[in-house]
Amino acid sequence: MKKFLLLFLAAVCVTALYGKNPKYVFLFIGDGMATPQRMVAEEFSRASGRGKLTINTLPSHATTRTGSASSLVTDSAAAATAIACGEKTNNGRIGMDSSGKRKLESVAYVARKKGKKVGIVTSVTINHATPAGFYAARPSRSQYYQIGLDLIASGFDYFGGGGVAKHDDKKSPEYKGNIYQLAADAGYKVVSTRKELAALKPSVGKVLARGAAGSLPYSIEKRTDVPTLAEFTAKGIELLDNPKGFFMMVEGGAIDWAGHANEAAANLHEVLAFDDAVRVAAAFAAKHPEETLIIVTGDHETGGMTMGFAGTGYAMYVDRLLHQKCSVNTFAQKVKNERKKGAFSWEKAQEMLTADFGFKFSGDIKKDPMVLTAREIKSLEKAFKENKLPAAARIVMSGKAGIGWTSGSHTALPVLTTSSGPGSEKFTGLIENTDIAKILKTLL
Amino acid sequence: MKKFLLLFLAAVCVTALYGKNPKYVFLFIGDGMATPQRMVAEEFSRASGRGKLTINTLPSHATTRTGSASSLVTDSAAAATAIACGEKTNNGRIGMDSSGKRKLESVAYVARKKGKKVGIVTSVTINHATPAGFYAARPSRSQYYQIGLDLIASGFDYFGGGGVAKHDDKKSPEYKGNIYQLAADAGYKVVSTRKELAALKPSVGKVLARGAAGSLPYSIEKRTDVPTLAEFTAKGIELLDNPKGFFMMVEGGAIDWAGHANEAAANLHEVLAFDDAVRVAAAFAAKHPEETLIIVTGDHETGGMTMGFAGTGYAMYVDRLLHQKCSVNTFAQKVKNERKKGAFSWEKAQEMLTADFGFKFSGDIKKDPMVLTAREIKSLEKAFKENKLPAAARIVMSGKAGIGWTSGSHTALPVLTTSSGPGSEKFTGLIENTDIAKILKTLL
Repeated sequence: MKKFLLLFLAAVCVTALYGKNPKYVFLFIGDGMATPQRMVAEEFSRASGRGKLTINTLPSHATTRTGSASSLVTDSAAAATAIACGEKTNNGRIGMDSSGKRKLESVAYVARKKGKKVGIVTSVTINHATPAGFYAARPSRSQYYQIGLDLIASGFDYFGGGGVAKHDDKKSPEYKGNIYQLAADAGYKVVSTRKELAALKPSVGKVLARGAAGSLPYSIEKRTDVPTLAEFTAKGIELLDNPKGFFMMVEGGAIDWAGHANEAAANLHEVLAFDDAVRVAAAFAAKHPEETLIIVTGDHETGGMTMGFAGTGYAMYVDRLLHQKCSVNTFAQKVKNERKKGAFSWEKAQEMLTADFGFKFSGDIKKDPMVLTAREIKSLEKAFKENKLPAAARIVMSGKAGIGWTSGSHTALPVLTTSSGPGSEKFTGLIENTDIAKILKTLL
Repeated sequence: MKKFLLLFLAAVCVTALYGKNPKYVFLFIGDGMATPQRMVAEEFSRASGRGKLTINTLPSHATTRTGSASSLVTDSAAAATAIACGEKTNNGRIGMDSSGKRKLESVAYVARKKGKKVGIVTSVTINHATPAGFYAARPSRSQYYQIGLDLIASGFDYFGGGGVAKHDDKKSPEYKGNIYQLAADAGYKVVSTRKELAALKPSVGKVLARGAAGSLPYSIEKRTDVPTLAEFTAKGIELLDNPKGFFMMVEGGAIDWAGHANEAAANLHEVLAFDDAVRVAAAFAAKHPEETLIIVTGDHETGGMTMGFAGTGYAMYVDRLLHQKCSVNTFAQKVKNERKKGAFSWEKAQEMLTADFGFKFSGDIKKDPMVLTAREIKSLEKAFKENKLPAAARIVMSGKAGIGWTSGSHTALPVLTTSSGPGSEKFTGLIENTDIAKILKTLL
């Protein structure tokens, strides 16, 4: 009886203090981001003086199974549906059940019903699978144009990030016009530059803001003409803040792409850009600690990334990725340009490999680990001759850093969900990705 | 002020209820067990009807960095020292600082100072790095004989599992006699069979119990003549229980070996045997819920194991590992025996591969996924001719199941620490392996 009384009193006190539902909810999703991606970026961030990652220091940690209704290995559509709506569905479905016939309700719609404003942000195209799971209901993720129509129909307050894929797809059976024009007709302020984004004020009303025609460029390119994911997040806070609070989903979408490409440096720079966005939310939460719930999860792992490579033994050298100065895609473009000019020599290729990857073709490897081994040089030269230099450079770089990969697809590794703020105590233990939506719906 | 009062009242109530220090502490360590190993076993356990793993359902989850003082990739000695003593040291050191000169104090000794009994259990040799970290202090993990001397000198109440490696190492500079004899001379009851173990009663005093001359056989072999890790754990509870409580460390040591060998089936069966041992502790905790802290961690990841293989695309088929009936080592021994007999034919090899791995050399792969592809058959036949059949069978099996590996060594992936009971709320978030010892010392 005494025990019961104490438990009751504790519950009353805790409820009075923390039990209220969060006014502000941030849901961050790293596409293709599980523990390996988080921790490679963590070690790099520490080694490079940037410090600990905010995504990993949130106090609640939950191991999160990601399998879909159709496979232990989910795609981003089924994962987004699970996280947004709370139901496992088949790979490929967006906001619909396994049959592709029944529409599901996402947590974003629940939030709006409760009077909150809603924002959807991503570093890739805004009608890609992950953001789409929060506002669309379509049997197939590839119905980009229709998903664009759902975006407008949602009436959500803020869309930011990449552009609308297939925004003028005249072949679509539901074609009604250019999505951007339709959005403007429906009352959206449509902007497409960093300057326009910066100038937006809360009085503007509904916003559809893109930083690029397609996805935002890889963060490793350090482009200053395009808004970052953190800037889109900060603008979201500014536009959405109101007495009833808001729900904002922010996706780091290109982590996945760098995973599919098995490219370590681009991958970790995307995680860092994602972490920068979470830092913006954490700074906001520091001002509203009892009202702000931050959840950071992934939708699945991509690439079978590991933090150890057969060649490096009992060691790992993530700091060596500091030497990579652009994505492999950009390097491939440079190589293509050189080949177009004609007379692209192995000497020129070596110069470029040194500039963009830090590889050294002579010197003492014991003094400088970026000096290439005879075997590495051979593999690069062979690839140069076979017109496969970018892929070879990527592989040598992963090897130097001690990072391994086992797949060009997704894997079934669970993701890590971390969180802070009111309600975060519910995100612990071994959970399903569907639990995120289920718990969020009860908290809203 | 009102907020402060509520917080204070809540703290008082919670402390009154749960704040007492745990009387019984179980620390389970899976050697080479990180999230991939836990989850491959989890999916297998669910697919085979055994149900959820207890190790993963414990409510508190913490992501745990494992790097040692000398490398981002730890060995088991530095990891054991970190977990047991709370200080990062160089790879190779046991219970000593980086210099190899200063002795550290393990949580097991702290527990004993507080009047608790202490048990050390492992599925590998009892003077291997992980158990040694709790009772020994030596500059090098390879000083097996001296570590055996430390074992006796510890005076801990119960040692169970594998035998003492190099127990009669006359070349050791500190040789004093056979470790088993020295243990008996020091008052230990030394037993070496399952029957003797079963017969031990709490009145017996100090115990050194081995189930094999070296390590326990792999769990996948399903040997009934040797005690299981769960049986050693249950006996530990029986012998150690007393009014002041106990501290017991239980290691699943051979998970690591199956990781080094990149052998998926043996690996997951070791995790299941480890989970069986945790179930014994969980059953005990169910009777003493407010007094029993259970912590389950790993010392590092081994093998760069992933839950997706390039060849399987968006799928994973862990259930196919049900077909493997013995370890690759045992299969290799069988092959060796056949070769000794002479006239070992490819036909006989196929028969053996079907019996021990479930591989089918004819049939429709669309109806039965264990039917081999032409490519798989070719790889096995080539290996047969080159006397490398066991390794080839292992690789085909991992591929069929969709499991990838990137290393024969350890990796820097963090491990997962799960826990339940009083004090488990402290094991959350991103922690260092040293935090386990630090928190445990404060709880004791």
